[in-house]
Amino acid sequence: MTMEKLLVVKIGGQIVDDTAGLEDFLKKFARLPHKKILVHGGGRMATQIAESMHIPQQMVEGRRITDTETLKVVTMVYAGYINKNIVAGLQSLGCSAAGFCGADGDSIRAHKRVKSGLDYGFAGDIDKVNVEWFSSLLDRNLALVVAPITHDGKNQLLNTNADTIAQEIARAMSAAYEVTLVYGFEKTGVLLDVEDENSLIKKLAPAHFQHLKESKKIFAGMIPKLENAFTALGQGVHRVIIGKAEALDQLLTGESGTTISHE
Amino acid sequence: MTMEKLLVVKIGGQIVDDTAGLEDFLKKFARLPHKKILVHGGGRMATQIAESMHIPQQMVEGRRITDTETLKVVTMVYAGYINKNIVAGLQSLGCSAAGFCGADGDSIRAHKRVKSGLDYGFAGDIDKVNVEWFSSLLDRNLALVVAPITHDGKNQLLNTNADTIAQEIARAMSAAYEVTLVYGFEKTGVLLDVEDENSLIKKLAPAHFQHLKESKKIFAGMIPKLENAFTALGQGVHRVIIGKAEALDQLLTGESGTTISHE
Repeated sequence: MTMEKLLVVKIGGQIVDDTAGLEDFLKKFARLPHKKILVHGGGRMATQIAESMHIPQQMVEGRRITDTETLKVVTMVYAGYINKNIVAGLQSLGCSAAGFCGADGDSIRAHKRVKSGLDYGFAGDIDKVNVEWFSSLLDRNLALVVAPITHDGKNQLLNTNADTIAQEIARAMSAAYEVTLVYGFEKTGVLLDVEDENSLIKKLAPAHFQHLKESKKIFAGMIPKLENAFTALGQGVHRVIIGKAEALDQLLTGESGTTISHE
Repeated sequence: MTMEKLLVVKIGGQIVDDTAGLEDFLKKFARLPHKKILVHGGGRMATQIAESMHIPQQMVEGRRITDTETLKVVTMVYAGYINKNIVAGLQSLGCSAAGFCGADGDSIRAHKRVKSGLDYGFAGDIDKVNVEWFSSLLDRNLALVVAPITHDGKNQLLNTNADTIAQEIARAMSAAYEVTLVYGFEKTGVLLDVEDENSLIKKLAPAHFQHLKESKKIFAGMIPKLENAFTALGQGVHRVIIGKAEALDQLLTGESGTTISHE
């Protein structure tokens, strides 16, 4: 049986903050003929707005500590401003789109992260992706735009890592689709030498990764991201591509970025 | 042919600002067995956040002048914070719900209001309600939560009056449903004497309204709201009810509020 293709693309704060870059990316995304889901991160705007509202922000290892006031800000910025501007942008490009967060249609259920030393506050760890919700909207030929806010079903919204949301959606949807998961990244892809963009690894299979990891030939900072990518692969995702979102078309043809697959 | 019933409820800023009042209202709304759409206004939060961000706010006759920075704020607060908190609240009450703004699914298309003396900035006047979008979600037994932000299809979000959104949705959906439109209001309903809650008019038909208006027996401030209600009635809406959203059940039975219908 041939499964229908589905593309899940995660873009990070860097491209969300760059108006021209985002517009250019959306043009490429809008044109793709596949069924598609875009998961967006936050960017500097949440920090700027929190600062202008005098809400102190604390980042630990790139993750935001989400107190009550910060949760308000990220809900406004991610699910409101960024999500709706991306949707309006896609609509203007002739790409029918709908945006939502995990509370809408109970699409992504999570629980508040259990404290283990560090208290992340209202940070969500995902329990369940509502495949039926995503499928029914995709069947209406809508591009789906997902904000990194989930809920716990008990009236609590939760700030949730966009990489993880993209991974969990890709994993859940793999039961029904042949899923390609694209992680937009600030580098060209997975590099052997982080200082040298020419050291790009174009293809990476599990055995190759193990070998590179054991022989310490891979940049340590990349390992968690790659572990996630291989986890997704083990969970049924067809392939994972890491690279610059700006080069979306080339990422999909393999001309750019790192493609992670079983082969 | 008996049409299926649909309830369109508009709640204003007053109830949105009152956490306990909103929670109580949502409990009543969640329990209603009908297909239902909730349109929410803004409230003081947009003004407070704009102030804390040092964005001066200008209100003319109760309408916000929406410059570029104010549009950012209302998009964040209405489509982000308020919309997602209402959805999470309904979900926690066992009411499956999904929230969106007019850009999502091209659900409400508008154009920037043409200047006629006063420039309202990025204020939208509605062109089209996407009946198919609303119907397909209602068919999935979702309660729909609509934020008062629309778009023009050319990548411009627009701030749009929530009363008007509710009226236009009610009007458009009347082709397929028997629609009851409820306007949440700070008074018990339509009063002959604005100072006296006992002067409530429980039922109002077109001829009765004409008579009251001509004999100047009705409070002048109510007339624009009533003209809108009768316009909706003329456009196919089954009945319009004006009253306190907190008394939702009693509004629907006719025990509270003013019911406007052909009879």
